Amino acid sequence: MADPLITLTTDFGAGSPYVAAMKGVILTINPAARIVDLSHEIPPQDVRHAAFFVAAALPYFPPDAIHMLVVDPGVGSERAALFVESGGMRLLAPDNGCWTLLTRERAAPRVIRLAEPRYWRTTVSATFHGRDVFAPVAAYLSLGIHPQELGPDETHWVELQWPFPLRMDGLLHGEVVFVDHFGNLITNLRGDDLPNEPHTPIRVSLNGQVVDRLVRTYSDGSPGEVVALVSSFGLLEVAEIQGNASARLQVSRGDLVRVEWK
Amino acid sequence: MADPLITLTTDFGAGSPYVAAMKGVILTINPAARIVDLSHEIPPQDVRHAAFFVAAALPYFPPDAIHMLVVDPGVGSERAALFVESGGMRLLAPDNGCWTLLTRERAAPRVIRLAEPRYWRTTVSATFHGRDVFAPVAAYLSLGIHPQELGPDETHWVELQWPFPLRMDGLLHGEVVFVDHFGNLITNLRGDDLPNEPHTPIRVSLNGQVVDRLVRTYSDGSPGEVVALVSSFGLLEVAEIQGNASARLQVSRGDLVRVEWK
Amino acid sequence: MADPLITLTTDFGAGSPYVAAMKGVILTINPAARIVDLSHEIPPQDVRHAAFFVAAALPYFPPDAIHMLVVDPGVGSERAALFVESGGMRLLAPDNGCWTLLTRERAAPRVIRLAEPRYWRTTVSATFHGRDVFAPVAAYLSLGIHPQELGPDETHWVELQWPFPLRMDGLLHGEVVFVDHFGNLITNLRGDDLPNEPHTPIRVSLNGQVVDRLVRTYSDGSPGEVVALVSSFGLLEVAEIQGNASARLQVSRGDLVRVEWK
Repeated sequence: MADPLITLTTDFGAGSPYVAAMKGVILTINPAARIVDLSHEIPPQDVRHAAFFVAAALPYFPPDAIHMLVVDPGVGSERAALFVESGGMRLLAPDNGCWTLLTRERAAPRVIRLAEPRYWRTTVSATFHGRDVFAPVAAYLSLGIHPQELGPDETHWVELQWPFPLRMDGLLHGEVVFVDHFGNLITNLRGDDLPNEPHTPIRVSLNGQVVDRLVRTYSDGSPGEVVALVSSFGLLEVAEIQGNASARLQVSRGDLVRVEWK
Repeated sequence: MADPLITLTTDFGAGSPYVAAMKGVILTINPAARIVDLSHEIPPQDVRHAAFFVAAALPYFPPDAIHMLVVDPGVGSERAALFVESGGMRLLAPDNGCWTLLTRERAAPRVIRLAEPRYWRTTVSATFHGRDVFAPVAAYLSLGIHPQELGPDETHWVELQWPFPLRMDGLLHGEVVFVDHFGNLITNLRGDDLPNEPHTPIRVSLNGQVVDRLVRTYSDGSPGEVVALVSSFGLLEVAEIQGNASARLQVSRGDLVRVEWK
Repeated sequence: MADPLITLTTDFGAGSPYVAAMKGVILTINPAARIVDLSHEIPPQDVRHAAFFVAAALPYFPPDAIHMLVVDPGVGSERAALFVESGGMRLLAPDNGCWTLLTRERAAPRVIRLAEPRYWRTTVSATFHGRDVFAPVAAYLSLGIHPQELGPDETHWVELQWPFPLRMDGLLHGEVVFVDHFGNLITNLRGDDLPNEPHTPIRVSLNGQVVDRLVRTYSDGSPGEVVALVSSFGLLEVAEIQGNASARLQVSRGDLVRVEWK
């Protein structure tokens, strides 16, 4: 049997001593744990970015992985620390909504509030629960303790407010929900909501600019051309071929998108 | 026996959900795979940078490692996806030349075109073959399937156009082929092509500036001094001691270099 | 028994071919080694940053881990390459002081000068001992060779000059020793040296600016507020809530801090 997997997603920055400390804590409790870095580049305290990230990435992992999400502006406050299980996926996260987008289309989650200090570090700092609570709990879970031991069931938690697309007056209204490393603008509009007919003319408006070329893949456009396509996540995306659409169009996350077709 | 190694080299950016998704796909197919991140910081779509990177790094790995190279501006087009084996080294890459520098001085490569969808994800997106083709194929290879099963032999592939140095009129002409994180300028001129006599005066010209101090290592120069040396890759390099030569000399990749000596 | 751990801390930059080459060298010698990236984002040649980083991170690791520190402005010069063992912790580093802060509060270190080329790569470059000396030695250590075999005991080494706080005229004088990814300013003043009374008014002065709000954790302040707190490392820290104190106050490492209270 393969050694247990623990994935890390944080806003600590690559090369942060905070990430290193968490890895040390995990490996001290379970030397056999295999740690997989997913991202330490979530923008600081950006719960919404984290939510999209984990919804995009975690479903690809095997069900026995344990996922740690540490984007935690409320650390040290009364916000709870949670264990969540949904459709076989297990994660640990602060109760700030960073995980709720992920479980929206899965089985109803089982949520436990972390309340058993014997699975935490002996001294818990007020500012670093990643090291003092989440990391040791992840390590103990990877050793096989039952989630039930971590604390009581929780029936209330913070739901992320997520912008859902709207169909109105024959138009689709949405917004940019993620900008990737290439500057591609990923929207909350699902490819499935666009017309099925492949040659239907389509007009995507963002920030007063119109993109009317819908392509299947980047190489269908010419370098420098701005195109729309259905991304690998199944969402409408606007990209500049071999360029950066976010910089080119001056569009960033939260900006509105409107799609119309005949 | 150690668990199989799969290395990742991409232009997706550290902390990209695309990298995370690929890791999940690999670990779902082969939970025992050990994933080693090499770089996710190849500049976007920069096949030439990728080529230098893998030529510099992959030869140090054990021969049974499987290397994934995903720098893929032509994704979704007719460009083939390849398995390459050369001198015991195995890699997966798009057919855009990103690997050919690496095998230039090795045994003639065996190249197979990936054509067997049963080793791919069930649905292959038009924009993300890293996740849908390369990652699952790498995972199946790490489980021991024979490369023969992946598709037919390929006899034609894109060769990277790489600038080779030229000796003319008693001068060596080359160019900067890589700028590292320290701003050191690595050229395509081999240390072996420089004069053997250790005290031969040498003049390296870049962008109208002359460097005439050839040292053995950085600590032979003074902080702020610009020197030439033979880098750990065996190539002529220009460095500013404890500084950034690229910024200081305003020289970047592709800029010409000329070396003369008596 | 779990496979042996080797951690990497360098200033090579994420995605550097130098890091990739070191990983290849380690895995060629010991295919079972588990490599854990701690940081490749130490600022170039910044021994002081490296010293703080490893003092903050390495104590969390299990004692059998082998830690490689490659921040090495003196590479190729006469500076020694060292093996250090202290309180069960084992590390490899150049003799430039980058590790001495770490062992200051531990058992007296045992230090060995690396002098046995049979544990190095056959050819040792003048500029890259990370690949040619430290990586192979780490791999051989992980295979179980005895440190004694690496070279002779060393009794002299470079001690890092580290600013220690000063109590004078009823004031505590210190400086900023680390700025994290969030822009939080971490000082060399220990929380234990501050008044025990929780409500004692305190004034922290940096760069002509005064912070007089001492909180327990970030969420005790309002977004945009600049506060002082005792960080998870036990050191006095100045932070802007959901902001960047370094940018806001124009304070960076080395800047002086003064604390007074009634």
